[in-house]
Amino acid sequence: MLLQSRLRASAVHMAQRRAAGGCCCCCSRAPLNEDNARFCLLAGLIFLYLLCGAAIFSALEHPFEIRARILWRQQLENFTRRYRVNLGALHTLLRQYEQANGAGIRVDALRPRWDFSGAFYFVATVVSTIGFGMATPATIAGKIFLIFYGLIGCAATILFFNLFLERIITMLAYIMRWCHERRLRCGGAGVMSSREESSGEEDSLEGWKPSVYYVMLILGLASVVIACSASTLYSSMENWSYVDSLYFCFVAFSTIGFGDLVSSQRERYESQGAYRLGNCLFILMGVCCIYSLFNVISIIIKQTLNWILGKLVCSGKRKLCSCPCLRSKSQSKRAPAAQRRVKRNAVQPVSTQRPVGRRHHTDGSVETVCDSETDAGAGAEVHLGRRLSGEMISVNEFMVSNKVSLALLQKQLSETAHQGPRQSYGHQNGFSGGVGALGIMNNRLQETSVDR
Amino acid sequence: MLLQSRLRASAVHMAQRRAAGGCCCCCSRAPLNEDNARFCLLAGLIFLYLLCGAAIFSALEHPFEIRARILWRQQLENFTRRYRVNLGALHTLLRQYEQANGAGIRVDALRPRWDFSGAFYFVATVVSTIGFGMATPATIAGKIFLIFYGLIGCAATILFFNLFLERIITMLAYIMRWCHERRLRCGGAGVMSSREESSGEEDSLEGWKPSVYYVMLILGLASVVIACSASTLYSSMENWSYVDSLYFCFVAFSTIGFGDLVSSQRERYESQGAYRLGNCLFILMGVCCIYSLFNVISIIIKQTLNWILGKLVCSGKRKLCSCPCLRSKSQSKRAPAAQRRVKRNAVQPVSTQRPVGRRHHTDGSVETVCDSETDAGAGAEVHLGRRLSGEMISVNEFMVSNKVSLALLQKQLSETAHQGPRQSYGHQNGFSGGVGALGIMNNRLQETSVDR
Repeated sequence: MLLQSRLRASAVHMAQRRAAGGCCCCCSRAPLNEDNARFCLLAGLIFLYLLCGAAIFSALEHPFEIRARILWRQQLENFTRRYRVNLGALHTLLRQYEQANGAGIRVDALRPRWDFSGAFYFVATVVSTIGFGMATPATIAGKIFLIFYGLIGCAATILFFNLFLERIITMLAYIMRWCHERRLRCGGAGVMSSREESSGEEDSLEGWKPSVYYVMLILGLASVVIACSASTLYSSMENWSYVDSLYFCFVAFSTIGFGDLVSSQRERYESQGAYRLGNCLFILMGVCCIYSLFNVISIIIKQTLNWILGKLVCSGKRKLCSCPCLRSKSQSKRAPAAQRRVKRNAVQPVSTQRPVGRRHHTDGSVETVCDSETDAGAGAEVHLGRRLSGEMISVNEFMVSNKVSLALLQKQLSETAHQGPRQSYGHQNGFSGGVGALGIMNNRLQETSVDR
Repeated sequence: MLLQSRLRASAVHMAQRRAAGGCCCCCSRAPLNEDNARFCLLAGLIFLYLLCGAAIFSALEHPFEIRARILWRQQLENFTRRYRVNLGALHTLLRQYEQANGAGIRVDALRPRWDFSGAFYFVATVVSTIGFGMATPATIAGKIFLIFYGLIGCAATILFFNLFLERIITMLAYIMRWCHERRLRCGGAGVMSSREESSGEEDSLEGWKPSVYYVMLILGLASVVIACSASTLYSSMENWSYVDSLYFCFVAFSTIGFGDLVSSQRERYESQGAYRLGNCLFILMGVCCIYSLFNVISIIIKQTLNWILGKLVCSGKRKLCSCPCLRSKSQSKRAPAAQRRVKRNAVQPVSTQRPVGRRHHTDGSVETVCDSETDAGAGAEVHLGRRLSGEMISVNEFMVSNKVSLALLQKQLSETAHQGPRQSYGHQNGFSGGVGALGIMNNRLQETSVDR
């Protein structure tokens, strides 16, 4: 009964999505399709974000820059007056010192840059794209070699980060599921019969969702823990303030790597081997963790973009063409298949790029539409009152409520699969999992939300 | 006829994949499943790569470091002898100069660091994670703000890069398809009848594939063109040598950003506004292009990993358990469904992480297996004589040859879709598209290879 009502609810929801998806296109037949619109919106927002950031940093740092400039002028003046040094000669010396700096030489002795351990630290900052710049190749051979070395190294590290992301998301999703099931079992006194199919899932549906926010929270906490531990280590070993250490951790873990603060650069440390190992491990863990965190945050940004796009399109065009997403609740559900197909073809995210003169399969268009519908729902979020949760939560609800028909479909598919075209599933929903790291999250969390 | 033979060939191929996939598990029931093994193999190889890189850079740069050290000592000695300056006082001055350097002060006047345009350049290097470090926040407020600012900014930029990657891959795939079709039409004198279904595709199959290597080639060429154009600009504006300019381009575009060379730092340039704009555009284009290139290369690395894994597993275990991948040609094809199902369950990449006491749907296991089979084929490459092309090429062949049954399947699916559970496709092949950027490539190229 409840399952049936859910099935109906989700069908309504689906129709809304479809209608809303169609809305974007039937309202505005501009050359910008949904994907391009999202891309441009993001580019615009990043540009705005940069402008705001520039203004704030300028306000924060400009006074200090002026003070530092005045201070340096005074110091230089004092020195030349006291030792009667020609200012030109001193400038020459300082230029020479700058060049020496480039080769890694400082007044206070630092560890050698290009012994094996130093070079190892250097290549690690290259392939991770941190690039502190505490050591840089000065020879032409070194510079040319760096280009080819970095090309392979950075690609391999990107693959490493992506595989790490996949592993960590899998692990988190299963841990979250396990915790939730444990909690359910303790609360519900272990119902193991077929009743669980509806009651257990009903509880799950209300109480727990494999939400991207949880994943973000866990990764955020992990990052904070790693950064705080690392900062404790750095502030004691490097004599940095705790804020400086935290700042260094963020700059290193996010692979920005300014190089104003670089760990493990002095000639001698207490228990040097252990510190160097700890430094490497902290940076490795931190980079992996922050990379994953960035990707999770980027999902939320994508959802926000979709929400903004949906709002923009539907509010802007409401008066022009009595937007279907407003009628969807009552009408779209019962819309004839032919009409629906027209709408779905209209959503094709790649349609503008199709060269003229190519045949279009009606079947072929299905999978491209899957994208715009499962893909965080410019449509799903348009529906008023629906919270900004997007993909995973709604997918979860959806999967759970459609368990029965899903099982049928899976059986069908697995039967067809035995005859051969198994990759066709991959084609069938070319984009349903989202893009990049988003694909990983969706797939992992979708999986978690169904095969319970 | 030809189509039928292809169908059979691909069925054999599929069976080989399945069997080889099963091989990995039935031979070695270690806690490491395929995904984990790939991850560990990659980590190991990166570590080796780092060791080699460290050795080479150490050999290249160490002599220069020693010479630079000697040179600086001489320069310092000359200065102190000539002007009779106390060495301690000079060291103090140099330390002060280092601090001033941190605030962006040099002997030769540079552009202000924290006016609006300077701050904009700074935040752009933050969100892109280039992090030259030519300007770094010196105040505590600036450092703390940077952490929060970078967290959102870097995540948004990662999303931007991923969306760009998606756009560029779509574009490339369609351009490649279009070129190929044009070529076919010119050669084949425009056959537009239903015959094209077999003959045209037969030609495509032999002559053209939406290969990852082509994509890499195009992106590589684009990167080279951008880097060379940018280098021409930089070498004329900054008075760098051409090699230095190329080196700077790579370091900037790959977001390593050492900061030893930074463009647009002098106080005055000829046609300054145009140069700054050009600098920004070149860096933006370069970063996007190299990011895409890295991701394409990372696919090839993943294929190589799968190939190595397949080799390792099957050659290592051949004597222990008469590996099924050697029998697959004749046997696996006709293996009973039950036996096959056991194997496929065994390949589940997430099976080791499943908590105990959870129910397993036999259907639910299908989609996880799709991963290990379509996912670049540790199995596909095991088969001797098959070239190291992996995913896309074999997927393409597969899609083309299975066109008929695919169309049927698609119709089935689209019919079911109208009843509701459309996301189930996403679930059905949770991982078939690969991970991260790999997913994008696979999906885009799969799409290109079918809906012709």
